[in-house]
Amino acid sequence: MHKLKYMSRRGNKAKGSSAERDLIKKFWEAGWAAMRAAGSGSTQYPCPDIVTGNRIKKIAIEVKFTSDTSKYFTKKEITELLYFCEKLGTEPWVAVKFGKEDWFFFPIHDLEETGKNYVITLEKAKIKGLLFEDVIK
Amino acid sequence: MHKLKYMSRRGNKAKGSSAERDLIKKFWEAGWAAMRAAGSGSTQYPCPDIVTGNRIKKIAIEVKFTSDTSKYFTKKEITELLYFCEKLGTEPWVAVKFGKEDWFFFPIHDLEETGKNYVITLEKAKIKGLLFEDVIK
Repeated sequence: MHKLKYMSRRGNKAKGSSAERDLIKKFWEAGWAAMRAAGSGSTQYPCPDIVTGNRIKKIAIEVKFTSDTSKYFTKKEITELLYFCEKLGTEPWVAVKFGKEDWFFFPIHDLEETGKNYVITLEKAKIKGLLFEDVIK
Repeated sequence: MHKLKYMSRRGNKAKGSSAERDLIKKFWEAGWAAMRAAGSGSTQYPCPDIVTGNRIKKIAIEVKFTSDTSKYFTKKEITELLYFCEKLGTEPWVAVKFGKEDWFFFPIHDLEETGKNYVITLEKAKIKGLLFEDVIK
């Protein structure tokens, strides 16, 4: 049981990295430069998952993948994203991929607080989320 | 013999990562945001080692560590750095740490071509290299 749980987590982590690489590819194909951060979540300094942009607009993104219908961002993740962006002068965004759905993007003020976290549900994402095409406009 | 060579390469790679982390720390302490790239050198898209900056100035850096007195950058590394920077609108720099010497920084036009590569020697670094303090000015 414990092992299964562990394997499932690893599986989600791998899917998360794969989702990040998918996003990197989309930005490059759209003519933006994009890079994934090393050790996001494990370095002592605030660090988003992805930094991307062009000569005019630059954004830092916290990225999540889930096979569920809701996804949490911790307050720490969001606080650190905001801090990083304030220092570097980039726009803070979050991006969520629910299974095989399209990517949904949210500016931070669209996140809903729920106790210690922020939550994005697939239902809400479909109503209020921005699509990739909206972000690179 | 083969094993020793392998271990020595691994040792240098570890020292390279450690040097990059040292640089990240210096930028944060100077009030800049900084992040290391994941899979630099192994992704299909151009990717510098570090992206750093503040609200005014943003730079992408190719980073090298050596215990020798000269260090090479391949033309591919420099071409990709320039391409990445042109897309993202950041300044391209290289940074070299020779053993326990201070970090030296160079804008690309200060690199010396030598056949298939660009080379920076410690001797030249001490004459023409910029120091960390110069870069964050």
